[in-house]
Amino acid sequence: MAEATSHPTPPQVLDPDTLRNLDRYWRACNYLSVGMIYLRDNPLLREPLKPEHIKNRLLGHWGSDAGQSFVLVHLNRLIRKHDLDMIFLSGPGHGAPASLAHCYLEGTYSEVYPDRSEDEDGMRRFFRQFSFPGGIGSHCTPETPGSIHEGGELGYCLSHGYGAAFDNPELIVTVMIGDGEAETGPLATSWHSNKFLNPIRDGAVLPVLHLNGYKIANPTLLARIPHEELEALMVGYGHKPYFVEGDDPDTMHQQMAATLEQCISDIRAIQQNARQNNDTTRPRWPMIVLRSPKGWTGPKEVDGHKVEGSWRSHQVPVADAVTNRKSLKIVEDWLRSYGPETLFDANGRLVEELRALAPEGARRISANPHANGGLLCKMLDMPSFRDYAVAVKKPAAGYTSPTAVLGTFLRDVMRKNMSNFRLFGPDETSSNKLHAVYEVSGKTWLDPLEPSDADGGHLSADGRVMEMLSEHTLEGWLEGYNLTGRHGLFATYEAFVHVIDSMFNQHAKWLEKSKRELGWRQPVPSLNLLITSIVWRQDHNGFTHQDPGFLDVVTNKSPDVVRIYLPPDANCLLSVGDHCLRSRDYVNVIVSDKQPHLDYLDMDAAVIHCTKGIGIWDWASTDQGAEPDVVMACAGDIATMEALAAVQILKEHCPTLKIRFVNVVDLFRLMPEHAHPHGLSDRDFDSLFTTDKPVIFNFHAYAALVHKLTYNRKNHGNMHVHGYNERGNINTPLELAIINGVDRFTLAIDAIDRVPTLRGVGDHTKEWLRGQIIEHLAYAHEEGIDKEEIRNWTWKG
Amino acid sequence: MAEATSHPTPPQVLDPDTLRNLDRYWRACNYLSVGMIYLRDNPLLREPLKPEHIKNRLLGHWGSDAGQSFVLVHLNRLIRKHDLDMIFLSGPGHGAPASLAHCYLEGTYSEVYPDRSEDEDGMRRFFRQFSFPGGIGSHCTPETPGSIHEGGELGYCLSHGYGAAFDNPELIVTVMIGDGEAETGPLATSWHSNKFLNPIRDGAVLPVLHLNGYKIANPTLLARIPHEELEALMVGYGHKPYFVEGDDPDTMHQQMAATLEQCISDIRAIQQNARQNNDTTRPRWPMIVLRSPKGWTGPKEVDGHKVEGSWRSHQVPVADAVTNRKSLKIVEDWLRSYGPETLFDANGRLVEELRALAPEGARRISANPHANGGLLCKMLDMPSFRDYAVAVKKPAAGYTSPTAVLGTFLRDVMRKNMSNFRLFGPDETSSNKLHAVYEVSGKTWLDPLEPSDADGGHLSADGRVMEMLSEHTLEGWLEGYNLTGRHGLFATYEAFVHVIDSMFNQHAKWLEKSKRELGWRQPVPSLNLLITSIVWRQDHNGFTHQDPGFLDVVTNKSPDVVRIYLPPDANCLLSVGDHCLRSRDYVNVIVSDKQPHLDYLDMDAAVIHCTKGIGIWDWASTDQGAEPDVVMACAGDIATMEALAAVQILKEHCPTLKIRFVNVVDLFRLMPEHAHPHGLSDRDFDSLFTTDKPVIFNFHAYAALVHKLTYNRKNHGNMHVHGYNERGNINTPLELAIINGVDRFTLAIDAIDRVPTLRGVGDHTKEWLRGQIIEHLAYAHEEGIDKEEIRNWTWKG
Repeated sequence: MAEATSHPTPPQVLDPDTLRNLDRYWRACNYLSVGMIYLRDNPLLREPLKPEHIKNRLLGHWGSDAGQSFVLVHLNRLIRKHDLDMIFLSGPGHGAPASLAHCYLEGTYSEVYPDRSEDEDGMRRFFRQFSFPGGIGSHCTPETPGSIHEGGELGYCLSHGYGAAFDNPELIVTVMIGDGEAETGPLATSWHSNKFLNPIRDGAVLPVLHLNGYKIANPTLLARIPHEELEALMVGYGHKPYFVEGDDPDTMHQQMAATLEQCISDIRAIQQNARQNNDTTRPRWPMIVLRSPKGWTGPKEVDGHKVEGSWRSHQVPVADAVTNRKSLKIVEDWLRSYGPETLFDANGRLVEELRALAPEGARRISANPHANGGLLCKMLDMPSFRDYAVAVKKPAAGYTSPTAVLGTFLRDVMRKNMSNFRLFGPDETSSNKLHAVYEVSGKTWLDPLEPSDADGGHLSADGRVMEMLSEHTLEGWLEGYNLTGRHGLFATYEAFVHVIDSMFNQHAKWLEKSKRELGWRQPVPSLNLLITSIVWRQDHNGFTHQDPGFLDVVTNKSPDVVRIYLPPDANCLLSVGDHCLRSRDYVNVIVSDKQPHLDYLDMDAAVIHCTKGIGIWDWASTDQGAEPDVVMACAGDIATMEALAAVQILKEHCPTLKIRFVNVVDLFRLMPEHAHPHGLSDRDFDSLFTTDKPVIFNFHAYAALVHKLTYNRKNHGNMHVHGYNERGNINTPLELAIINGVDRFTLAIDAIDRVPTLRGVGDHTKEWLRGQIIEHLAYAHEEGIDKEEIRNWTWKG
Repeated sequence: MAEATSHPTPPQVLDPDTLRNLDRYWRACNYLSVGMIYLRDNPLLREPLKPEHIKNRLLGHWGSDAGQSFVLVHLNRLIRKHDLDMIFLSGPGHGAPASLAHCYLEGTYSEVYPDRSEDEDGMRRFFRQFSFPGGIGSHCTPETPGSIHEGGELGYCLSHGYGAAFDNPELIVTVMIGDGEAETGPLATSWHSNKFLNPIRDGAVLPVLHLNGYKIANPTLLARIPHEELEALMVGYGHKPYFVEGDDPDTMHQQMAATLEQCISDIRAIQQNARQNNDTTRPRWPMIVLRSPKGWTGPKEVDGHKVEGSWRSHQVPVADAVTNRKSLKIVEDWLRSYGPETLFDANGRLVEELRALAPEGARRISANPHANGGLLCKMLDMPSFRDYAVAVKKPAAGYTSPTAVLGTFLRDVMRKNMSNFRLFGPDETSSNKLHAVYEVSGKTWLDPLEPSDADGGHLSADGRVMEMLSEHTLEGWLEGYNLTGRHGLFATYEAFVHVIDSMFNQHAKWLEKSKRELGWRQPVPSLNLLITSIVWRQDHNGFTHQDPGFLDVVTNKSPDVVRIYLPPDANCLLSVGDHCLRSRDYVNVIVSDKQPHLDYLDMDAAVIHCTKGIGIWDWASTDQGAEPDVVMACAGDIATMEALAAVQILKEHCPTLKIRFVNVVDLFRLMPEHAHPHGLSDRDFDSLFTTDKPVIFNFHAYAALVHKLTYNRKNHGNMHVHGYNERGNINTPLELAIINGVDRFTLAIDAIDRVPTLRGVGDHTKEWLRGQIIEHLAYAHEEGIDKEEIRNWTWKG
């Protein structure tokens, strides 16, 4: 703890002129922040403030704005002084005014949105649009130039920051963390991201913990714990904390300037040492604790209640300015306290001597290209996925682990893209059989090694496989990495991908808004989620590990940005994987088992099948192109195998039955074409599924999802979907399938039941099938495994 | 940091005999743990180990078992010595063998499951069932007596522990935290739970951070950071850490015994001081860091690879014992190293002198009634909810905030149940208008107060409102509180309830298993989630705050345990709230807005309506009991208002149209009766929705959910569902409704389009409606608010 430093008497880093101008710039920011919240007209207060100048509905959050602007003003000084390449992530909830004000003062806002020009009219529009219908939100929505972090939901700013810093050795990412957000779980563990930052190849992250003191209506935990606990916590997280605490602007300016100089100097020293001496020992990176009053520079007191330095500054401190003259006066005095007439010229443009304080061009935080990552995005140099194909001479005759094959492909993707591709996963890259990547790169690890790590540990400071037991942190890293224009894939457990449901929701919303409405945001690499350790092979881990419901969450998001693929075998997974890695601006969800799996299609057939996304497998069908008696459909690898085994049984026992076998890879093919760009036309759908024949649909996830996607198809009344039915314990794979009704026997029985011509005729077969179920369950319960004929089932053709 | 203590030379707390017997008890546990993983027969090794004694599939995780058993053995000593009331939560993944072994040795397992008796046959069955089809899982599933924490998914053991300790002043909850789990976000922030533990009225939590060193294939972060960082981290979290580190059993026993004595003494001192002096200053509670080798006491090396003390011990260290003689020998030697013949008597029962070490009766950790909370659960003393009713003389004529009314009811529920009811929420109890509860109790707060806190802060050490900006922690607390038999309600933001999707999944699975299969587990209070700040009133917070998809997640869970209610007004919310608080073993999800809302039903009507769960509102219908032309259906408060306003428009413009108005409170009424216990029969469904008339269904959440629930109803083809369509930005409420098509105008247009007799006739009206939409949007974009006639719309009748 000796390293931690504070500045009771700050050194006088700033000369009086610089101090004065810095403070004026800060006042301009604060003026704009308050203006955004309150004003629909009279933006420069050229006339006395009247009720009609005030917005009818006052929204936005004043609480952290001045503190955030304070940091931004000082960062600008440092950027200019040291020619820093820096982006800024605003964590505190609804604190966009600070970033927006800076963006506007730096001219970037007007460049991107010319009608919000640097003059009185532009300022009026700039104020009016804020938290106003048809305008922009109160946190840093995608519309905010210079931002890659929206922060509508709290918890992810620090992991986003690290994602941005990876493989950007010259970049410094300043992350402002609200003390509310700091209470969330995702944020609390993301401090440990510093253990994954390699000072040689990666940039730096400078966390600024903003002890603003209050949430909506409560003190924050970190603002009230004793100083020694807070300091210990930051040291415990592996940081060297600096404290900037107070409320007197001049003193605080000097403190902040000195502290930031120190931090930049620490960062430079760390990087220089690491890079000159090839020293990847994990350093103690600096961080800043900024303790400033909530609502700093705002009204001290309103109606006898303390406002500055209290939770009453959290949102809009004076709410009735339209209807209450006294309140209107408070707002006017507050706005005038910043001296707008001394900050803006006759046209309403920031005065020249202050403009000179901002960085220029791409050095402006608001215009840094890293925050519009598509600008910097390089195409992946891709090997040909066909080179990794599994030879398939005969369908469903041999077994391959699809993810193991994908691993060899990913290995070479990584090899060819050693500075802009990473693989993410909680702790399971090997367990998920993607271990081939270790031939090229290990797992990032900067803490001390032990001798036994050499034996299969695959740890290295420059590893490109990112493993931490926090899905939140991994997802946050990948989002940050993607949004700054780089590529990746996150492999995770199916049941526990629900941990990041909410992060997925937020990222999908960001992508949709960017893609649909913001032409200036260049497309970024898609977020690729490989969902493995799937429900049907969690028979041994039990009920808690069985939950395929993430797909339901995904289907709620905009069809513009979500894609779901269920490749049935290794070659299909290769084809899908290649497609996803090349795509932009989507969330691609790929569901694939890691266990050895039947190979159905050779590479050519796989490419055709995956490109179509859905299709009839003639070799597995018995209708020979004629109108079938029944359609056996399936989506998902295990679901496909069981459906195929059911066909085999039916071929044998009901040889005249005409079965059509349909496999779905691209789940959104099932949706109507008007509802999703991948949706099939009704004609195409009907030509696959018929308009009147029974369809037995074996589905990977919860059955109702297929109904949700197909309810308005003509033949929907005949669709009988089998899927996970929330039944499971410790089982064998077949037993788990049986108790949920997705096994071959149950499917065959269902087919017999649904085909009118088999009524009665099939009774004997049904009897036999029921006997099979009993026999197989008995064996499983005795031996603890499925019979050999199940474990190694192959298609007889 | 001066407070932290370790024991380089441990005091000799244990005399040689005690030490020897403790160690033997530990060996018995370890023997059982290994037996569970490997043996299907020959449980006492009475004959040489043969391949046929080994399970065909080896499952379960050896890694943390010995460390956990080590702690349990020592806890038993302390329980006996100090007559402690203690439960134990096992955090490390798949580490059930330790808890199971203790449970069996204490006799509890045989009491609960008589066929797993304390003899050779019983032990065989006990071994065989573990991670075996039809048996139990490898983590502490609900089948484990003495456990309230399954830990299938990682992250929640500490918050569960605190939930159990609240309002149980004599209870000590020892929580064993795996160093893998410690990397998760939810765990990382749950350390701060100590800021909410009142030493007077609450029990104690003793965290034991188990630095086992490795996850599946990686070192853990906390095991590799320098000692001073780890110590600082624990101090920073507000704890007084004690370190027990090593691998020599005898030394470790002495260290552990001394350290636990110290911890119990610290806890007692804290509680005594607090209780005698009424001192609620937050103490620094003790915690233990246990650093022991992964796979402790297991094989040191296999095939030249280090196993003990390496990630290779994580699961099954020797995997091929059935097929490889050498491996079989290793397993046999390993098992015999514990000396089973010295631990178990001729019948296979633990020898008497070791039995004497275990606590007795309800003092056994495995039989502590707190871990079967239904045993201790007291009914809530409930006020009559009717006393809080809003007077409704005329439907939809006045506005009331439903949650504000619920708040007055909850206030009195709290008043009457000041030791077994709590209210949970991130930071929004006031914002969600439940502030009436503050008349009875404040928010728990033990850290220093500032003068301004007295002004509306509602902070107090004995507050029963639990606020922390971590949905994970709150949900974990409530689950722990519920599972130990106490009652609560968690109010949270609709969009961000997705943060706990996965926790909800896991809790629902626990409840289902307990309820359906485990008669000995007594029913516990339902987990009540009040979802507010709903999508339709997040027009001002924007797109990130709009996500009603939690309901989709909920509908995937077992119909045995999930319930969803969408009360349309304050009186209905009271009725539903009362019902939920009285219920057991469900997750009740209640969706209700916090903003002032139209009152539709007086209390009598509300009770009838909520009891039926779905019904026709005659006063809002124009079909006068006849077959209608169109059914206007709705679920959700805003959806109901807009549907009603649409009816009003249609009444005026299409006076001959026969409209039936159906409101749904209990969403599962829509499901078929065979699929959910609340499901309507087809006859009842058809009698409400007709079999051939168009149904315009205005839904609170994503439209497809209604299709998912109703796809197999006769009239499904005529159901036209309106719901959130993933469209939003900063809007007015009406604008948000319009862009998603759930507004009155769009609904009226849809009705006109669907009713054959209005074809052509309604064109003029449709034109007018389209004009209304344009006019209202223009107003909203100009003024920033909706027109008065929208904001204060009432039903004209």
